[in-house]
Amino acid sequence: MEHKTQQTTLPLSPFTQPIRCIVKLGGAAITCKNELEMINEEILHKVSEQLRQAMIASSEKPPGMDWSKKPASSEIFCDPEKFEDCSSMECGRFIVVHGAGSFGHFQASKSGVHKGPLNKPLVKGGFVATRISVTTLNLEIVRALAREGIPSVGMSPFSCGWFTSGRHISSADLSSVAKAIDSGFTPVLHGDAVFDEIQGCTILSGDVIISHLAAYSKPEYVVFLTDVCGVYDRPPMEPNAILLKEIAVAEDGSWSVVKPKLQNSIELTVAAHDTTGGIKTKISEAAMIAKLGIDVYIVKAATSHSLRALNGDLRSSIPDDWLGTVVRYSR
Amino acid sequence: MEHKTQQTTLPLSPFTQPIRCIVKLGGAAITCKNELEMINEEILHKVSEQLRQAMIASSEKPPGMDWSKKPASSEIFCDPEKFEDCSSMECGRFIVVHGAGSFGHFQASKSGVHKGPLNKPLVKGGFVATRISVTTLNLEIVRALAREGIPSVGMSPFSCGWFTSGRHISSADLSSVAKAIDSGFTPVLHGDAVFDEIQGCTILSGDVIISHLAAYSKPEYVVFLTDVCGVYDRPPMEPNAILLKEIAVAEDGSWSVVKPKLQNSIELTVAAHDTTGGIKTKISEAAMIAKLGIDVYIVKAATSHSLRALNGDLRSSIPDDWLGTVVRYSR
Repeated sequence: MEHKTQQTTLPLSPFTQPIRCIVKLGGAAITCKNELEMINEEILHKVSEQLRQAMIASSEKPPGMDWSKKPASSEIFCDPEKFEDCSSMECGRFIVVHGAGSFGHFQASKSGVHKGPLNKPLVKGGFVATRISVTTLNLEIVRALAREGIPSVGMSPFSCGWFTSGRHISSADLSSVAKAIDSGFTPVLHGDAVFDEIQGCTILSGDVIISHLAAYSKPEYVVFLTDVCGVYDRPPMEPNAILLKEIAVAEDGSWSVVKPKLQNSIELTVAAHDTTGGIKTKISEAAMIAKLGIDVYIVKAATSHSLRALNGDLRSSIPDDWLGTVVRYSR
Repeated sequence: MEHKTQQTTLPLSPFTQPIRCIVKLGGAAITCKNELEMINEEILHKVSEQLRQAMIASSEKPPGMDWSKKPASSEIFCDPEKFEDCSSMECGRFIVVHGAGSFGHFQASKSGVHKGPLNKPLVKGGFVATRISVTTLNLEIVRALAREGIPSVGMSPFSCGWFTSGRHISSADLSSVAKAIDSGFTPVLHGDAVFDEIQGCTILSGDVIISHLAAYSKPEYVVFLTDVCGVYDRPPMEPNAILLKEIAVAEDGSWSVVKPKLQNSIELTVAAHDTTGGIKTKISEAAMIAKLGIDVYIVKAATSHSLRALNGDLRSSIPDDWLGTVVRYSR
């Protein structure tokens, strides 16, 4: 007698080998929040350095891969001999996704790209302007990673054929991303303006991209690098704000704070302290990934804590002195 | 009795509506040949202006779509009211493809990206460096077009899933390009570093991209904007170099100079005067497109002659005072 096996609703994944980590570079962490289209160079440099340390085993920094002319220089720099000395360029299988921060946000909100429709001239103009702004940031991040010797390649969701329908991903060609990883590169994706089958166009956020990529590529862990230490019970600037260190996700998707033991149940609904959604949204997104059995670490970028998270040091147990939020599936 | 119809080898084209024109912005025309990674701003501006005149019927310049911060400014500029006045943003169905010129060339040649393999550290580094350089140029061209009010969107062949096998295109997802055009945008593609199934990676040239796009999208005409007046019988700098005004392509792909009537048959083999291949290569590529019944105009960028070519003024007949080379199928 034959048993019908339960069919999965996900199409076949193009990822043939395991991914180690998907990293989100939060827009607030790598750009200057209050200055339009301004990168936080210091943080981006530090983040790139930590990514290199986590991805490339060699203690020596590999030769840089951004050979472009530097401003106020007339020369391009590349030393081929340095590459001859590299016996291997083995590099951890990471996918990087970044937000927009002070890039793209102005253009998108001014024009209403997130809700369409495209036949409205202002929306069409905003679509073009938003893509110019976010791809400018993408190029700079690819550059920063390449300077550290990470073989990064920029991949815009718009170009990669990501579409939405009613703002939910309806189609995403992951084969290019998988092929890039299989060939030893680090794909760098970003929140982008994309076509939407119902409303014409929308903004596809970095967080939604990560959820989608996680579902198909099943990374060992996911790291969200932000500008605060993790998820708090209220806006982190408020006195007495408590860092939620561990959140457990149940099989039905519900979640609860395991650590610290809170005396009063926290009022999460009022604490909508960031622009992309409140704590609830943030935890719900992380919980969706955690439900796949993938640990999610939310941690302040460019700190010793983020390096431990990127290294995968937290997979067995979370040390008491680690500052950040772990969202984890509890079977 | 049934007759078997001849089967075409081309997969189904995603282009559902006719394309008016594919334009190649030659690398030599839009960049400064002798200065590394330097755009020829004056030519690029003029080319963008002519493209806008050819694509957008309205005599008034539409509002700009690059709202990014200008250097040394702290503000982003966008005037939403200007868009409210636009009753329509109708725009000719053009595809723009550009070469690399002084971008990418150094990085590619220094590392041997065109021949692979990717497991060689220098090639891998060069792949990353080449992509950074050519996408930098792509972004600047998208910006220049957007400033003219052309709804341009950058699309890298690498991200769009273009692969080669033995340096010939083996797979190219044209649906993203078609979808962008159908949504009223102008895709801007470029010569790029891509994966090759046999040798690991290679350089996919802008000219090969155009041939491929032309075969599937069947544009009304194709324009190559270069830094010289057209194709000559010898290096154009040489005294007595003769501009070949009309080249006829026969059904078997062979071609002959129709205008001017040359006294001696020209020695094309010795005249390999540019880096991407000699005259023969250039004409052969144009001939392949012409064989599809598509007129090809090779003309100096940013001149009155290029504007007439972009406008499609030459489709019925070529005026005697037009300077350039027409490559045309003669049935």
